[in-house]
Amino acid sequence: MSTRTGRTGDPVVGELTEGAVLRAILNVFGPSDAEVGPGDDAAVIAAPDARVVATTDTLVHGPDFRLAWSSAFDLGWKSAAVNLADIAAMGARPTALLVALAMPETTRLSFVTGLAEGLRAACEALAPGCRVEGGDLTVSHTLTVAVTALGSLDGIMPVRRSGARVGDVVAVAGDIGRAGRGLALLFGRFRDASSQPVPVDVDALDAEQRADLAAQLRPTPPLRLGPVAARAGATAMMDVSDGLLLDATRMAEASGVTLDLMSDALGPDIDVALSGGEDHALLTTFPAHAPLPAGFRVIGAVRATATTPVLVDGAPWAGRDGWDPYRDWDSSSG
Amino acid sequence: MSTRTGRTGDPVVGELTEGAVLRAILNVFGPSDAEVGPGDDAAVIAAPDARVVATTDTLVHGPDFRLAWSSAFDLGWKSAAVNLADIAAMGARPTALLVALAMPETTRLSFVTGLAEGLRAACEALAPGCRVEGGDLTVSHTLTVAVTALGSLDGIMPVRRSGARVGDVVAVAGDIGRAGRGLALLFGRFRDASSQPVPVDVDALDAEQRADLAAQLRPTPPLRLGPVAARAGATAMMDVSDGLLLDATRMAEASGVTLDLMSDALGPDIDVALSGGEDHALLTTFPAHAPLPAGFRVIGAVRATATTPVLVDGAPWAGRDGWDPYRDWDSSSG
Repeated sequence: MSTRTGRTGDPVVGELTEGAVLRAILNVFGPSDAEVGPGDDAAVIAAPDARVVATTDTLVHGPDFRLAWSSAFDLGWKSAAVNLADIAAMGARPTALLVALAMPETTRLSFVTGLAEGLRAACEALAPGCRVEGGDLTVSHTLTVAVTALGSLDGIMPVRRSGARVGDVVAVAGDIGRAGRGLALLFGRFRDASSQPVPVDVDALDAEQRADLAAQLRPTPPLRLGPVAARAGATAMMDVSDGLLLDATRMAEASGVTLDLMSDALGPDIDVALSGGEDHALLTTFPAHAPLPAGFRVIGAVRATATTPVLVDGAPWAGRDGWDPYRDWDSSSG
Repeated sequence: MSTRTGRTGDPVVGELTEGAVLRAILNVFGPSDAEVGPGDDAAVIAAPDARVVATTDTLVHGPDFRLAWSSAFDLGWKSAAVNLADIAAMGARPTALLVALAMPETTRLSFVTGLAEGLRAACEALAPGCRVEGGDLTVSHTLTVAVTALGSLDGIMPVRRSGARVGDVVAVAGDIGRAGRGLALLFGRFRDASSQPVPVDVDALDAEQRADLAAQLRPTPPLRLGPVAARAGATAMMDVSDGLLLDATRMAEASGVTLDLMSDALGPDIDVALSGGEDHALLTTFPAHAPLPAGFRVIGAVRATATTPVLVDGAPWAGRDGWDPYRDWDSSSG
């Protein structure tokens, strides 16, 4: 089918066989070093300490991204990054991705290869040594990217969200709120009169806004610090995907403690720092007297259970919390 | 949220938090024996021989299933079975599933728990010891179940589709064509005047037809025979998901040989045996003089490369081949 692809320039996938689409994708990834890489019924991936860390996270057109705002490259990058973050947040090193892509028959082949390039680039930037080792292609009315990430703990204990202890410090690595500001920018500035998304005019943005937008569309959380935190004695860790307040609440509830955050440490816009999701920063707790690894900053302390699982400056927070897809997504809002 | 669930009887997921839906699902699966099971950023699964076998396969409403024909239980069962088959087809033992479920906000909670029950039952029946250890929930206009299966080779070599050698016998374990007959029954008998699917009237079917339908909706391929075949010296193996002719072609091309099938061994309806997909039988090759494990039957022989990758009784096959989702799915056909 490759000659046909060449003749038509940029065919839609409905004109191609599954094999032809697959070959175009695998061409982006290049040869695999895995015992069995893409192309068989399943891949065979090294798991050096006889355990594998595994997570899956899906991006769906509508609630999770809009094609008017995200390029194919952005979508591939982000679908990798959000999964790599979940591996890092256990203290593990990502080793492989599997990518299930469900897409309309009208999807251009160049979109599929652009998405593959984004997946590859995110792995190279955020988790060197990790790559796509398998996947699945199917048709759907709704463009959907379901990624599974695998990782290795390399002999250390996983860092769970339930290990925070009274007296620990609360620390983060990575931005808090920036991706949320990027999302607000998209919804606030780049929709038409009927609330539908329109392409971003980057020239209309200042440098700070461009950084916010990039954090939303192509997040670059410091994932190599996940294993660093684990080795430095982190007692609990998770990535901040749904907003600091909601994710800190989950950690507090899993650990049976209260996390008391310091507003001074959360930047000038505390509302967006607490409620803005998708930064994929690493939220951790460390013993109070352990030296913090470079890249982490203290944002609070672990207390005995209080009236609410999360406090800000010792008091319950009255603002909104984070993002819940079932509660918060309004399919009519564009 | 559990009290609210109780009060409303059977709420739709759009009325619930993600946490409430997740709790209902995890209640079906019961406690996990994994080092880290569901509920953290990622699961930690044993990989006893320092390798993990991993595959992903997605079922999308429309091309892969119709809710008029498949119950929630059926859908959960089948989404597990198709992935477990890919693990078994490498010669491995399934150890864990991850399930990413994207569903409309109007989906009933009972549908979600029914799907979870189907996932659990398929694991118990087809791959004892394997269970759901993680997943993801999101909203989508299109009901989509993306499953990842993990497995262990327990120290043996993976059996690839590229290992068939001239002189080997071709053998299968499991039904060939039955699921295809079940699909033909659904499209032929259970659609309305405008080609839309209508519920199956089981009373209108004879015992053989009911078995065909069950093979399509809740396949029970003999997956425990995957590791058995690997230990008995199978040179190549794959599961038959897209029809024997198409999948045998893939094995032949990967191996650089021709597979010559015997029509006598393919049952009374050779067309459906060659083109009907979704049986997930294990297609294997074995050295000619190796004793075949119980459950396998010879259906052909491996020849040097001929005019076509697959022959039937020594001649190219002129009928239709298998199912290709990009080529074959017509979204207007109901």
